[in-house]
Amino acid sequence: MKRAELTEKIADIKRERGWSWRYIAGEIGGMSEILIVGALLGQMKLTKPQCERAAALLGLTEQEKRLLNEVPARGSPMPPTDPLIYRFYELVMINGPAWKALIEEEFGDGIMSAIDFDMELERQPNPKGDRVRLTMTGKFLPYRYYGATGNDQSLGYKKD
Amino acid sequence: MKRAELTEKIADIKRERGWSWRYIAGEIGGMSEILIVGALLGQMKLTKPQCERAAALLGLTEQEKRLLNEVPARGSPMPPTDPLIYRFYELVMINGPAWKALIEEEFGDGIMSAIDFDMELERQPNPKGDRVRLTMTGKFLPYRYYGATGNDQSLGYKKD
Amino acid sequence: MKRAELTEKIADIKRERGWSWRYIAGEIGGMSEILIVGALLGQMKLTKPQCERAAALLGLTEQEKRLLNEVPARGSPMPPTDPLIYRFYELVMINGPAWKALIEEEFGDGIMSAIDFDMELERQPNPKGDRVRLTMTGKFLPYRYYGATGNDQSLGYKKD
Amino acid sequence: MKRAELTEKIADIKRERGWSWRYIAGEIGGMSEILIVGALLGQMKLTKPQCERAAALLGLTEQEKRLLNEVPARGSPMPPTDPLIYRFYELVMINGPAWKALIEEEFGDGIMSAIDFDMELERQPNPKGDRVRLTMTGKFLPYRYYGATGNDQSLGYKKD
Amino acid sequence: MKRAELTEKIADIKRERGWSWRYIAGEIGGMSEILIVGALLGQMKLTKPQCERAAALLGLTEQEKRLLNEVPARGSPMPPTDPLIYRFYELVMINGPAWKALIEEEFGDGIMSAIDFDMELERQPNPKGDRVRLTMTGKFLPYRYYGATGNDQSLGYKKD
Amino acid sequence: MKRAELTEKIADIKRERGWSWRYIAGEIGGMSEILIVGALLGQMKLTKPQCERAAALLGLTEQEKRLLNEVPARGSPMPPTDPLIYRFYELVMINGPAWKALIEEEFGDGIMSAIDFDMELERQPNPKGDRVRLTMTGKFLPYRYYGATGNDQSLGYKKD
Amino acid sequence: MKRAELTEKIADIKRERGWSWRYIAGEIGGMSEILIVGALLGQMKLTKPQCERAAALLGLTEQEKRLLNEVPARGSPMPPTDPLIYRFYELVMINGPAWKALIEEEFGDGIMSAIDFDMELERQPNPKGDRVRLTMTGKFLPYRYYGATGNDQSLGYKKD
Amino acid sequence: MKRAELTEKIADIKRERGWSWRYIAGEIGGMSEILIVGALLGQMKLTKPQCERAAALLGLTEQEKRLLNEVPARGSPMPPTDPLIYRFYELVMINGPAWKALIEEEFGDGIMSAIDFDMELERQPNPKGDRVRLTMTGKFLPYRYYGATGNDQSLGYKKD
Amino acid sequence: MKRAELTEKIADIKRERGWSWRYIAGEIGGMSEILIVGALLGQMKLTKPQCERAAALLGLTEQEKRLLNEVPARGSPMPPTDPLIYRFYELVMINGPAWKALIEEEFGDGIMSAIDFDMELERQPNPKGDRVRLTMTGKFLPYRYYGATGNDQSLGYKKD
Amino acid sequence: MKRAELTEKIADIKRERGWSWRYIAGEIGGMSEILIVGALLGQMKLTKPQCERAAALLGLTEQEKRLLNEVPARGSPMPPTDPLIYRFYELVMINGPAWKALIEEEFGDGIMSAIDFDMELERQPNPKGDRVRLTMTGKFLPYRYYGATGNDQSLGYKKD
Repeated sequence: MKRAELTEKIADIKRERGWSWRYIAGEIGGMSEILIVGALLGQMKLTKPQCERAAALLGLTEQEKRLLNEVPARGSPMPPTDPLIYRFYELVMINGPAWKALIEEEFGDGIMSAIDFDMELERQPNPKGDRVRLTMTGKFLPYRYYGATGNDQSLGYKKD
Repeated sequence: MKRAELTEKIADIKRERGWSWRYIAGEIGGMSEILIVGALLGQMKLTKPQCERAAALLGLTEQEKRLLNEVPARGSPMPPTDPLIYRFYELVMINGPAWKALIEEEFGDGIMSAIDFDMELERQPNPKGDRVRLTMTGKFLPYRYYGATGNDQSLGYKKD
Repeated sequence: MKRAELTEKIADIKRERGWSWRYIAGEIGGMSEILIVGALLGQMKLTKPQCERAAALLGLTEQEKRLLNEVPARGSPMPPTDPLIYRFYELVMINGPAWKALIEEEFGDGIMSAIDFDMELERQPNPKGDRVRLTMTGKFLPYRYYGATGNDQSLGYKKD
Repeated sequence: MKRAELTEKIADIKRERGWSWRYIAGEIGGMSEILIVGALLGQMKLTKPQCERAAALLGLTEQEKRLLNEVPARGSPMPPTDPLIYRFYELVMINGPAWKALIEEEFGDGIMSAIDFDMELERQPNPKGDRVRLTMTGKFLPYRYYGATGNDQSLGYKKD
Repeated sequence: MKRAELTEKIADIKRERGWSWRYIAGEIGGMSEILIVGALLGQMKLTKPQCERAAALLGLTEQEKRLLNEVPARGSPMPPTDPLIYRFYELVMINGPAWKALIEEEFGDGIMSAIDFDMELERQPNPKGDRVRLTMTGKFLPYRYYGATGNDQSLGYKKD
Repeated sequence: MKRAELTEKIADIKRERGWSWRYIAGEIGGMSEILIVGALLGQMKLTKPQCERAAALLGLTEQEKRLLNEVPARGSPMPPTDPLIYRFYELVMINGPAWKALIEEEFGDGIMSAIDFDMELERQPNPKGDRVRLTMTGKFLPYRYYGATGNDQSLGYKKD
Repeated sequence: MKRAELTEKIADIKRERGWSWRYIAGEIGGMSEILIVGALLGQMKLTKPQCERAAALLGLTEQEKRLLNEVPARGSPMPPTDPLIYRFYELVMINGPAWKALIEEEFGDGIMSAIDFDMELERQPNPKGDRVRLTMTGKFLPYRYYGATGNDQSLGYKKD
Repeated sequence: MKRAELTEKIADIKRERGWSWRYIAGEIGGMSEILIVGALLGQMKLTKPQCERAAALLGLTEQEKRLLNEVPARGSPMPPTDPLIYRFYELVMINGPAWKALIEEEFGDGIMSAIDFDMELERQPNPKGDRVRLTMTGKFLPYRYYGATGNDQSLGYKKD
Repeated sequence: MKRAELTEKIADIKRERGWSWRYIAGEIGGMSEILIVGALLGQMKLTKPQCERAAALLGLTEQEKRLLNEVPARGSPMPPTDPLIYRFYELVMINGPAWKALIEEEFGDGIMSAIDFDMELERQPNPKGDRVRLTMTGKFLPYRYYGATGNDQSLGYKKD
Repeated sequence: MKRAELTEKIADIKRERGWSWRYIAGEIGGMSEILIVGALLGQMKLTKPQCERAAALLGLTEQEKRLLNEVPARGSPMPPTDPLIYRFYELVMINGPAWKALIEEEFGDGIMSAIDFDMELERQPNPKGDRVRLTMTGKFLPYRYYGATGNDQSLGYKKD
């Protein structure tokens, strides 16, 4: 069974029962909504207890339950053609160079982890039109210069 | 003169003087650091007063000052090959489908604007390793169904 | 069930009954033809009352009716290989830079929304050969420079 | 001399003199602003009298004047990375299939010409935020079925 | 039913009966062979009377007959991997710039229509090896400079 | 010296003198206009006597004259972005499968040579608008089945 | 029936019976092994007598037998991901420019035919490790300069 | 100044002096050879003391010295066309799925860091031909399931 | 039967029985785990005795057993979208140029074989977080300069 | 100095002196023409003595001489747009699957080396038109199954 088939089956069940993703995620529980929905859409895994609850809720077979517990081959098509997802892609394309310059200046050579990473999605009421608020925190991971011997590795030349 | 040549010139000046992006952005002032650095890297524009201050600080010609005030042809190469920028791209690729599902469920059919959009980048101290915190808020823009006549347009079927 | 399968089923029904898109859109009603046909082709959603009428007209199952009410993963293959669609793509490729220059000059830094957007397609009789007339209006969305403090943000240097 | 070099030179002159595209197009005159700006950006040609006026206004050499009168190798990079241009690309990607269905139904098998084509760009005042209005009309060109002998070629099956 | 499935079915029938494309096209009649074969391969449409004759000849269902009367989503994969088709692609790649220079010089700014277009394929006997002769004529479509006011639009500077 | 630089230089000279391609090709003479213009644009070679005449006409250096006599690295960018060249590309994309079916049926397994190939471009006067007429003949090259022993290799099943 | 399905069926039969490609090619006979295996893999056609023998050997249906006699839509995915095939691709990528220089110098402007082409694959015993020996001969096809009038077309300037 | 220009300058100096990369890396010292050579080729940064030594050794300007201390925009062209680099790419393409299966099974859901990462390149003498030995160790980074509440997150179902 | 279908079937069986890849590889035995898992995922072949044991363990048909013994069409999609596999791809992209410089300097012109190649994957315990250790050794293959006559082929200019 | 600049300089010298590649390769000597021309075109390296002779013949600087002795970053653009090179690419695309099947059947799992590889290009006189003869031999490199313990690794099931 392919993960994509399971995703399609779950969407069919959800549609049939008239449930929201939020409701399903709430019933499965145990971690953030984004991660649970990501798993149901084939981009994340659920833990075993979550799989049990998901299987009970959605009426999945033993096979399907176990498949939800496996790490999927992650990734969705790029560039995104859907406008909602494209806007995030555009943000990276436009702001990526500035993020790089400022993060490296602040933290030194390294990256923000996309693995040791947390994110939250909220509605921010606003009289001019509500806003989507997305907060991400990722651990800064410095590039390791193995073999380095007692050097100053800071990303020098700050004004001070 | 091409915008890329101006970007290269500014980087040369910055390097020569030993200044940080943060210092330069602080001297120019008037809006968030990310936007100012984005403009210096050729992805945003500066306002006229900012251009004046930037030109004074960096010793730019009249031509260059005016170029900074123009809206550039935005965009950087995709997929990003630099690891720091790639991690953000990966976040969109992995989480995009879940963001779509949850935003549409919460707000209805539409997108988070990448134009009426605000973002902040902070260091979040953490004993296990400091974290990069990126907060974004974008106005939700509902798909307009022009020509629609008094229908309920809500994205139905929430559990309630 | 995949949205593409529903699209194929609807095309089969339409073919069998010998109906035109215009007729079907008229029966479903409630918003512009382009949007309704777009939804039947898998690029838009219909509202609930529209879904009811569509299901009644086309004899859809409860599942299919609900699927029409969901926001699809939008997008069709690019570059378009079909000549009719390619001509629009070509218009963007050839005129995009001039649109950018003139819109930014008129409105400042920003975009024409593709979301808060209206469009109409008409036949324009003409003795030399009728013409297709496509009128689009999209809300201008100015780039927000959050963090900006009382600066003049206009896209300066107009001749006056 | 490459056309791109001339485009860059014209942008330099425009910047130096502080002129708007609209002003320059008005001085050159003789056809719509979009076409004139398109020519100055290297996607269209100007007629000889326009070239004379453009050369006088901008101080171009004889060579440059003649280059403006040549048909350029048209086309700008796709997919567009600039958000303003991308929104138009997205409109084609999302609405292309519906345009195809409705145009073919109304006119029969053929295309809207991108060559015998007219377009106008206007600001549409609106209390909720001004709108960009883009009107296009293109001649409908029916697919010619040469060799056809007296058949009904209409795209049948309309409901009537 | 997808058009590709109909194409496959027609090829199966043709194979089973041992017919040639030429024979089938002759039986359907009413326009040039290339167009009829193109329709059977999913790139063109047949008129209603042709569809009737095609359905009778090939034993198609009512659904299939109507599908042949619909304008397909045109296009085959590019770059072509099949050597026969690739050679034509190569001709465009090598000769395209010269065609552009000479057609524009002769006709002015515009294109040869690929829609109001006729073509014929013949065997040209030749003692050194027979030749394929492909004759194409397409209407020249001049770029319309709408908004133009009484200017000379000819593509000047011919030597005379 | 790169061939593209020579192409640019020739275009500069042509522009300066106000000559047409047709005039230049006529002066160089010795083969068809398309081939001579193709050579001047960097896709073909000229013979030595042609190079002599081209050098005399255009005032080329000895180096440049010899470069024109070399076979270039052929090819122009694909897919073409220029509308005039794109239409030919589209013709291959739409008609390629039918050409393949009919050529193979008529000639057997093989291709139309793009090397032993002749082509002519003419204006065809027409009261509804003049037409571009492009005639191509290419030698049919049968796929060689070396190692084959006395078999019938014809592409069977024609109806007769 | 698609050619790829026939290829898959033949591979199933071969696997079931434990036959080698060489054995199958020997039984079918009539041309070189590479061509026969190429046909069974969907890249070449077999002649009618070969199809008869193939059908008898493999137990194919009448339909399948005829499909083997048709010219397929040739081509396999590029760039090749399989290491064995990639090495040949790499040889073209690395040596292509030198082959071009030397073949054109020796033969003049033209190509080595990939159609009137013969090839042989042999094992070459070698104490340091056996070698694969691939011999190809293709007819040289000179570029035809139609319209040429008695000129010297040789690719001049050899040292002599 | 672009980093690529500095890379070219360093290669010129190295060539002129007849030095090896190993010698240069040894003189600069302070971390592993691969990282130092990577920095000189524009993929890594050197620390300040290393930059001082590099500048002294190679005779770099103050500007160039500082550029070596900056984090470059990392990345080289993919897919690699050079055979030596391609072989590593192929190893990822062929073995990636198995690495994924085994690493996830051993460590749970996560990745091997390419940032907190060490690697060593050695010659391994071997009578059948010396071997290249590449040892990599990267920290395992478990996917963080933030918001998770006390669940078992292990990648279950090992046989025990 | 396609190899991908067999891969899917094996994954279904594994899931059903709750086995790990390590357990399955241990039962099949006879070569390294990575190679066996690679074969089960469709990138390698198993030897006959291994196929027997795999078939017995997994309950495969005779057909499936034989398919496992065939060399597959190797390769997985690139660039990898899965983060775990991408990190290896990134390592090649960032470090490839340095590997090339150092391997060529040490060994001369040639490559590290990806065929005569060994690799091992281990967990390296580490108090700061366990590490993945991947050791690869590949035979160095010098570029053969056939036709060379007694020249010094070493990659000169080392400092010594 | 970039290798491409050296290639261009060498072509300029060759053109100026009216030499053929064959003459130049003969003067440099020491290995096959294809390899020497490949080196001069930037895809191979020359040995030191060859570099000396090349420098003397072509009047190269010390820098340029040394650059010819360096292993270049190999690779030319793919897919090839030049017809002569494309035909070889096509041969791989059409025949690759059959080569794979037959080489693996004859030699077992492995590849033909593109590194320990020899090739020869000859003119083969033929009354029907001379032929290009390209002979390649490459060492067969069996896939190493390290960790394998005494198994039969032959690619079984030959008919015998």
